[in-house]
Amino acid sequence: MASGASTAGQPAPVAILCGSGAFPLEVASNAADAGRAPVLIGIVGSTDAAIEGYPHIWLRMGEVGKLFAALKERSIREIVMVGAMTRPEFADLRLDWGAVKRAADLARLFRKGDNGLLVGLAAIFEGEGIRVVGAHEVAPQLLAPSGPLGARAPSDEDEADIALAAKLLAALSRFDMGQGAVVAAGRVLAVEAAEGTDAMLARVAEMRENGRLRLKGPAGVLVKAPKLGQDLRLDMPAIGAKTVAGAARAGLRGIAFAAGRVLIAERGVCAGEADAAGLFVAGFGG
Amino acid sequence: MASGASTAGQPAPVAILCGSGAFPLEVASNAADAGRAPVLIGIVGSTDAAIEGYPHIWLRMGEVGKLFAALKERSIREIVMVGAMTRPEFADLRLDWGAVKRAADLARLFRKGDNGLLVGLAAIFEGEGIRVVGAHEVAPQLLAPSGPLGARAPSDEDEADIALAAKLLAALSRFDMGQGAVVAAGRVLAVEAAEGTDAMLARVAEMRENGRLRLKGPAGVLVKAPKLGQDLRLDMPAIGAKTVAGAARAGLRGIAFAAGRVLIAERGVCAGEADAAGLFVAGFGG
Repeated sequence: MASGASTAGQPAPVAILCGSGAFPLEVASNAADAGRAPVLIGIVGSTDAAIEGYPHIWLRMGEVGKLFAALKERSIREIVMVGAMTRPEFADLRLDWGAVKRAADLARLFRKGDNGLLVGLAAIFEGEGIRVVGAHEVAPQLLAPSGPLGARAPSDEDEADIALAAKLLAALSRFDMGQGAVVAAGRVLAVEAAEGTDAMLARVAEMRENGRLRLKGPAGVLVKAPKLGQDLRLDMPAIGAKTVAGAARAGLRGIAFAAGRVLIAERGVCAGEADAAGLFVAGFGG
Repeated sequence: MASGASTAGQPAPVAILCGSGAFPLEVASNAADAGRAPVLIGIVGSTDAAIEGYPHIWLRMGEVGKLFAALKERSIREIVMVGAMTRPEFADLRLDWGAVKRAADLARLFRKGDNGLLVGLAAIFEGEGIRVVGAHEVAPQLLAPSGPLGARAPSDEDEADIALAAKLLAALSRFDMGQGAVVAAGRVLAVEAAEGTDAMLARVAEMRENGRLRLKGPAGVLVKAPKLGQDLRLDMPAIGAKTVAGAARAGLRGIAFAAGRVLIAERGVCAGEADAAGLFVAGFGG
């Protein structure tokens, strides 16, 4: 657990390194509700300008020295990494002096898979005395519960598909990929790799439209789970209203996620839109 | 091996159940070169009308009784299944009396994965005394060789990506899917499921165009291999000029396939287009 204990009644500060989308703001708001003082780190060109509603710092990708100086100046000892970040090419980074000093470490990271990159980034932070903590540690309200979020629950056949997809994702774990798959009646329709969940759902919708998949009525379940052995502080899978909309467009029966190991953005909106679309959205295991 | 031995100097007939595309015709032509007498079975709405250049029979999906009667009438004891077929929904089949008699068997098939469906279909053929043989048995010229088809060969780094992808495909085998993947410098970019190889390559091209993947220059290898334990008579992976064009559009470094376990359509065209595009196309293992 993160030691969010404040000294002298002051909320302990926590940096939030913000990828794209609105989710970093939801983490910030939930962290504030949970008694922390969030400082948002925006990446120019990636992060939503709405972070300016909070104490914030703008950086360019590669300004590692500036980041560490800013954290030190504010006595920030913990950082959360949240939201999608386009994986940059090492050559595209705008390295400042702080980055150049660590260039060998950084370059090594860019020869690894996604998980290797994040683990290495975390090691660089920790080498500077900055603990990397998970969004779920500063904002536990965001953790996926077990059981249904909305009105609908998976059928026995859905449960069989969920179990199959969970086994598939587990088998993919050692390849540093695979946090999502779509399975319908025992058949694997799609597996997520670099394209991400939204693109995978769009693909299922397209295969149904163009007749490559001929399925009658709602069919299939999207299953999201973290990699086995994944450090959940670094890259916990997340779903949100966009995921529900994508699943509805793909004509799925529902969405299942590993309870306690996936983050839910906009939980109330997800439940409402799932109910409206006739989908279940439910945690398994956990 | 198929017993292609002819009696009294007559070439032994073999039925070719033709999916879409030109590949069934190439199998027919190679089978004729190898001393067989092909009879092409076309599925109305799926199969290329060019099969009419050979002895042929047109059927609608579900006309199982008509198929068996036609094979019997021509004393055909062997059938090859070739080319992509859109997996129909059971309810879409136009069942004739021969199908109705086997309806329970057929319906059971449609609750299985692709491989289960093909294995079951083969069992139905074999129950009627018709042996299912592989395209490679009647037209061995089509089998993928080991080593490069064209002028280029994989680098050591490519070999590492090929080995990783081959391991990934092996791990996916027990999920009755996964005959293709794209790996670049140790990172899994895409995994093939119901969408097929061409759509997977188009996805990689799209991720490079829209900036989701930022890769400099040619990067990544498409690897094709059959499922472990796959009955190669039923669903051997195939590549052709379309695969080479798709890999070129995706900016890959090359295509690797399991030697002796993948079929190559239009081998000369594949080699020429790969050379022109600067790709390697090469068999591994085998």
